[in-house]
Amino acid sequence: FLSHPEDLGIVAVGFSGGQGKAGVDGGPAALIESGLLDQIRDELGYNMYGHDAVHTYKDFVPAHDPPFRNMKNPRAVSAVTRRIAEQVHSHAKEGRLVLTLGGDHSIAIGTIAGTAKAVRERLGREMAVIWVDAHADINTPETSGSGNIHGMPVSFLTGLAREDNEDYFGWLEDEHRISVRKLVYIGLRDVDAGEKRILRENGIKAFSMYDIDKHGIGRVMEMALAHIGSDTPIHLSFDVDALDPMWAPSTGTPVRGGLTLREGDYICECVHETGSLVAVDLVEVNPSLATNELQAQETVRAGCSIVRCALGESLL
Amino acid sequence: FLSHPEDLGIVAVGFSGGQGKAGVDGGPAALIESGLLDQIRDELGYNMYGHDAVHTYKDFVPAHDPPFRNMKNPRAVSAVTRRIAEQVHSHAKEGRLVLTLGGDHSIAIGTIAGTAKAVRERLGREMAVIWVDAHADINTPETSGSGNIHGMPVSFLTGLAREDNEDYFGWLEDEHRISVRKLVYIGLRDVDAGEKRILRENGIKAFSMYDIDKHGIGRVMEMALAHIGSDTPIHLSFDVDALDPMWAPSTGTPVRGGLTLREGDYICECVHETGSLVAVDLVEVNPSLATNELQAQETVRAGCSIVRCALGESLL
Amino acid sequence: FLSHPEDLGIVAVGFSGGQGKAGVDGGPAALIESGLLDQIRDELGYNMYGHDAVHTYKDFVPAHDPPFRNMKNPRAVSAVTRRIAEQVHSHAKEGRLVLTLGGDHSIAIGTIAGTAKAVRERLGREMAVIWVDAHADINTPETSGSGNIHGMPVSFLTGLAREDNEDYFGWLEDEHRISVRKLVYIGLRDVDAGEKRILRENGIKAFSMYDIDKHGIGRVMEMALAHIGSDTPIHLSFDVDALDPMWAPSTGTPVRGGLTLREGDYICECVHETGSLVAVDLVEVNPSLATNELQAQETVRAGCSIVRCALGESLL
Ligand SMILES: [Mn+2]
Ligand SMILES: [Mn+2]
Ligand SMILES: [Mn+2]
Ligand SMILES: [Mn+2]
Ligand SMILES: [Mn+2]
Ligand SMILES: [Mn+2]
Repeated sequence: FLSHPEDLGIVAVGFSGGQGKAGVDGGPAALIESGLLDQIRDELGYNMYGHDAVHTYKDFVPAHDPPFRNMKNPRAVSAVTRRIAEQVHSHAKEGRLVLTLGGDHSIAIGTIAGTAKAVRERLGREMAVIWVDAHADINTPETSGSGNIHGMPVSFLTGLAREDNEDYFGWLEDEHRISVRKLVYIGLRDVDAGEKRILRENGIKAFSMYDIDKHGIGRVMEMALAHIGSDTPIHLSFDVDALDPMWAPSTGTPVRGGLTLREGDYICECVHETGSLVAVDLVEVNPSLATNELQAQETVRAGCSIVRCALGESLL
Repeated sequence: FLSHPEDLGIVAVGFSGGQGKAGVDGGPAALIESGLLDQIRDELGYNMYGHDAVHTYKDFVPAHDPPFRNMKNPRAVSAVTRRIAEQVHSHAKEGRLVLTLGGDHSIAIGTIAGTAKAVRERLGREMAVIWVDAHADINTPETSGSGNIHGMPVSFLTGLAREDNEDYFGWLEDEHRISVRKLVYIGLRDVDAGEKRILRENGIKAFSMYDIDKHGIGRVMEMALAHIGSDTPIHLSFDVDALDPMWAPSTGTPVRGGLTLREGDYICECVHETGSLVAVDLVEVNPSLATNELQAQETVRAGCSIVRCALGESLL
Repeated sequence: FLSHPEDLGIVAVGFSGGQGKAGVDGGPAALIESGLLDQIRDELGYNMYGHDAVHTYKDFVPAHDPPFRNMKNPRAVSAVTRRIAEQVHSHAKEGRLVLTLGGDHSIAIGTIAGTAKAVRERLGREMAVIWVDAHADINTPETSGSGNIHGMPVSFLTGLAREDNEDYFGWLEDEHRISVRKLVYIGLRDVDAGEKRILRENGIKAFSMYDIDKHGIGRVMEMALAHIGSDTPIHLSFDVDALDPMWAPSTGTPVRGGLTLREGDYICECVHETGSLVAVDLVEVNPSLATNELQAQETVRAGCSIVRCALGESLL
């Protein structure tokens, strides 16, 4: 589905406004300092675009930003994700693969909006999303307990949550949205009661850790990709907290019982092998939350591994 | 098989006489202090009975208790398990689900005797037992090397070991016993030569770690439950040492190469899903054996997770 | 295929010349000190031969040994492996099972040459090799980046690398060699570009970690053994770095994303169960590389477990 699969558009998003813990805006810099971009260029051979800056979006963050419909920092997150959508779209419309490094998971409002629009324009198709996460991130502003928008991106992207005011995600239009039928979750294990109901009522395909234990990750990926079908471009949004804290401790909302790094890498290798991948997000790497330096390194290393596998690194 | 599946009878057993290491009698208190009972009530919605006390059975422990047929503390373990059988039976005869928190695994002589009797009385049926453990705990007094009774409960419960004297498990009658055909082991990896012979000669169904590696835990649970059949009430007896020491280090006889916590939780979720569960034991959590505080916490946390999954917590 | 399956020939190889890090020559002593030989005799019941010495091959190491065709220490490694081939052959020709404890993986040039020759002499058959390793060790002197011969043994053993000069592996003759069709890799995850090409061009059967995640270790072993066929003696060469650093950190070239110890043990149990095993190598245990004493112990313990499983230890 890419006209230039050898070209990689990169958006490094130093933003943490979708949740309350400082430091996740330092994720992209940590990933890059550890050599991720060099590996992408030297070992995987991509032509990189947009890799020279980590964006902070300072100009998009208003001085006054009171809660709205229970959402925290709503104007900031709305404005920043709108800008990210433009950045991602500018790469995607050229037929490049797009890699976004977060930042918290609210930024996927921007990344998915941007690729969904470009895929519609370029190919006249709907796009599928594989959301790898311990969490479903599908609360509406009303079902959310915390008000943190990084727990809501999927509800805005699917249209389950809507808002007319342009300053509060009203800029999201149908061309930016995805269908609940084209959404697949992998790795869920900490889903709110309200979210469980949303998943059930909308018939959303979700593979929890229970399913992975039951079938094995090999069979789960077969089922996930069969659900999407081979005729559909795929946006992979990978929250590093999908991995077990044993491999990725340094993240805002770690949950035990997660994916092994082997399983995380395998998911990404499988998605890459489809040839349908059009964009990848890696989010929620927060080096500042580590108890010790080793934990931060491990998490960054796991994040780099996930990205490289999604971009085509293979063992043999 | 329960007339009141929303009711949970709880027996907290602060007893360590079935083996030699102090501290496993502190298991129930540690589990409760970490919030297990609150989770059971608030998140799983059970009506709880018997949750207000941790029993120490001081009155049942004789001052003089010399070895008998090689068994250590035989009169104490016999008297205490007899009392536990009454306690468990008093819940089970009301049609409640029963949860017992140990204590060492000798206490299963009481828990299984109590539920087996109640199931016979209420339903006129034999009960099945799923014994999740690194060890088979099926030594007879004569095959045991150590004389610790926590290595013998299954031999008394199946009638492979028998004794007429009431003070030394002579109180066990046919109504308390289970059939070797209705017994399934999961997680075995440290089985004595004498026990291997007993398992073989009696055709007892056992899934070792080798089988779990070979088939995956999903297929093993299918086979285990198929062996039992859908018409049979199930008593789940879970020794926390079935888990790998990576997740449950703080236990009396840890053995490497064990279940991941994901696998342990999966086993319990599967058993709960059958709708046939009538009782659960969680035993051998010994916080005092931890090298550091974190190890004790991890073990308690793993134990709570196992119990919640057995009681119906699910991911989606 | 063994005329005396109850007899075990042991060659303890204290040699590290196939690579640059000191200490791997201390592997055999560490394994033996931790009780491996006692376990083999007492628990598995073998008659042991050659177990009374750890060989250092001092007399085979020349004072002057400059690189040759890019190989480091070429004369030393050639002379030592030639001697190992004789030692292994002397056990194998008696119809004994042979266990070699390394030392770095270059020593497999000797062990496999010795068993291949004996199998041809005793049985008139070709032998298969199961190479369990994070690495393919199939560089030729020319494709190797490092010049370390422990990365080349498979190329010499298959005849992909050849040299006439007797002092530089010219002593290897057809009777010592194995066929690329009878070679199976398990656990690969760090394979050089040149090696990938060699594997592909020669149609060599290789199961990477990707394959293990996809199919599970149970199915992978079925496929691996089906490739070899039931009519073929098997030499198992196990590099401890096939295990994840979580279980075997103390080794020269650890690579993340490896086998769990359960998977490693399972591989060995499966190979033993075939009844076709004629020789086992365990290599690359380097206690001196541990960050702390626990890491060294863990690695030694993992190595002992691997060896015992290959020699027939089973759970039930
Ligand atoms: Mn998450
Ligand atoms: Mn997320
Ligand atoms: Mn046990
Ligand atoms: Mn037990
Ligand atoms: Mn290796
Ligand atoms: Mn090797």
